[in-house]
Amino acid sequence: MNIEMIEAAATRLEGHARKTPLLASPFLDEIAGRRLFVKPECLQHTGSFKFRGGWAALSAMDAETRAKGVLAFSSGNHAQGVAYAAKRHGAPAVIIMPADAPQLKIDNTRALGAEVVLYDRQNESREEIGDRLQAERGLTLVKPYDEPEVIAGQGTCGLEIAAQAAELGITEAEVVVCCGGGGLTSGIALALENHASGLKVRPAEPEGFDDVKRSLESGRIEKNPAMGGNICDAILTPAAGDITFPIMKRLCGPGIAVSEDECLQAMALAFLRLKLVVEPGGAAALAAALFHGKELQSDTVIATISGGNVDPEMFTRALQAYGT
Amino acid sequence: MNIEMIEAAATRLEGHARKTPLLASPFLDEIAGRRLFVKPECLQHTGSFKFRGGWAALSAMDAETRAKGVLAFSSGNHAQGVAYAAKRHGAPAVIIMPADAPQLKIDNTRALGAEVVLYDRQNESREEIGDRLQAERGLTLVKPYDEPEVIAGQGTCGLEIAAQAAELGITEAEVVVCCGGGGLTSGIALALENHASGLKVRPAEPEGFDDVKRSLESGRIEKNPAMGGNICDAILTPAAGDITFPIMKRLCGPGIAVSEDECLQAMALAFLRLKLVVEPGGAAALAAALFHGKELQSDTVIATISGGNVDPEMFTRALQAYGT
Repeated sequence: MNIEMIEAAATRLEGHARKTPLLASPFLDEIAGRRLFVKPECLQHTGSFKFRGGWAALSAMDAETRAKGVLAFSSGNHAQGVAYAAKRHGAPAVIIMPADAPQLKIDNTRALGAEVVLYDRQNESREEIGDRLQAERGLTLVKPYDEPEVIAGQGTCGLEIAAQAAELGITEAEVVVCCGGGGLTSGIALALENHASGLKVRPAEPEGFDDVKRSLESGRIEKNPAMGGNICDAILTPAAGDITFPIMKRLCGPGIAVSEDECLQAMALAFLRLKLVVEPGGAAALAAALFHGKELQSDTVIATISGGNVDPEMFTRALQAYGT
Repeated sequence: MNIEMIEAAATRLEGHARKTPLLASPFLDEIAGRRLFVKPECLQHTGSFKFRGGWAALSAMDAETRAKGVLAFSSGNHAQGVAYAAKRHGAPAVIIMPADAPQLKIDNTRALGAEVVLYDRQNESREEIGDRLQAERGLTLVKPYDEPEVIAGQGTCGLEIAAQAAELGITEAEVVVCCGGGGLTSGIALALENHASGLKVRPAEPEGFDDVKRSLESGRIEKNPAMGGNICDAILTPAAGDITFPIMKRLCGPGIAVSEDECLQAMALAFLRLKLVVEPGGAAALAAALFHGKELQSDTVIATISGGNVDPEMFTRALQAYGT
């Protein structure tokens, strides 16, 4: 995993992934007590940064491998990112989802061109189903984060941040990144190390699921106690990856843990001040930038918004709690 | 009013106004039955395209005139656009607003650096107050649409559309524009006439307030019957302007009238598929593109979203009605 892979991915993503803008609001600067920029990956295709990794993985395959198709396990943003990247490559995609996933997510993934294989969480092993499909059809598994080409794709977001910061004359800043398994976080960190060395990555996680924060403190991969029970579903993962963690250990930290209420409040502020739809997990970095200023050092902070795939009910909850 | 003024405004806006991206979603293409792109001016500074015109007007003044300050009548997007453009020019701004305007809008305009002068709609004339302030302080009035530099500023959005369409290889398309007094509509039309002559502007208005549609049919400026009673407040104006209408007559049409329900549905789809916060009036063009396909001819349609300054209550209403 190196910067050349990220640069190569950027070339392959050119004209396919969106270059998301860098946004700001004087109202948010005032709350943050510093200059705050936002990198809205909710505006990326399929509503999250995951399309970058999906495209990078698909476009890195040789034509024969790709024609056989790809496989992913996901009920969320990774599913949609891989499905749409495959569709636009003309490649088959099989997404294995739990049968009790929300119907809308299943429908969306199908509408993006994927074959959805449902499994019973209680009685079936998704890995066994995946192994069988790989064997039968020659599908290639696209892992959600611990996979070099996927990290390379997410890292293209960091190349954009480096270029956009340079345009604005920003040479020193903290870049707060919503962190699950660390694909986006490690990819951005590698990109910045090489293209904007004064910009440092600070991972943001939900309170109680701050495995990366704890891992950076202990120096080894720590696990989360559970995989649910927090509204930030998009960034709840069991633990950082064997590829992503060493990169984060070298380049990122300390981590910042944010509460669910802070995420809801950040969602409402993104609605009011940026006109963006942000999902709870996608608001973690913005929440850290707005409400954890004492844990930040630099005059300028750039917060990534990792995604915007939120149900109307949850969005309404944020607006009702903090919309005025 | 000519293309050179728009090009000059673009030079002055460079690095100050945002170049908004061109977004799309396969889900929206399917509803529209054609290729649909969205130009989201809700992501512009202050949440609407009005910042372009405000900046163009302020930056066109000589330093002495600007230092005395500017004046605007508005309780909405124009107020915020002018206030913030003035603040960033270091110029005083006085915004005359009705005393019964929502407190949030008054607070926002003040927070953007303007002095807000409130008047009693029943017993005071805002024009008299404005005349007095102009005489006493030497303020320069910035009109909301029927003013060449303001039209030039809004026209920079059209230059961006022309360049973005060329990048995508689009040489023929209809560009649907949310239309109030016609500043954005005429500015975009002039820009496209000169830089993308295969792109034609179609004004979109609320049903019952479709004065421009009727004016284009009759060939003379028709008026709206009222100034309220429709959720699309941002684009309710008495009539097109003496400068904007001749441009629209020459270059735009036919107009498309959309219902309030269609705007709410377009808002919900922008939430779901584009992750954008859109106000009812700002959704008029998207609603026309999605639900009035029979009135459109081209394979490719570009819909502007003029703004996103919507109250949480109204946004929730759109989500509850059409969010699933």
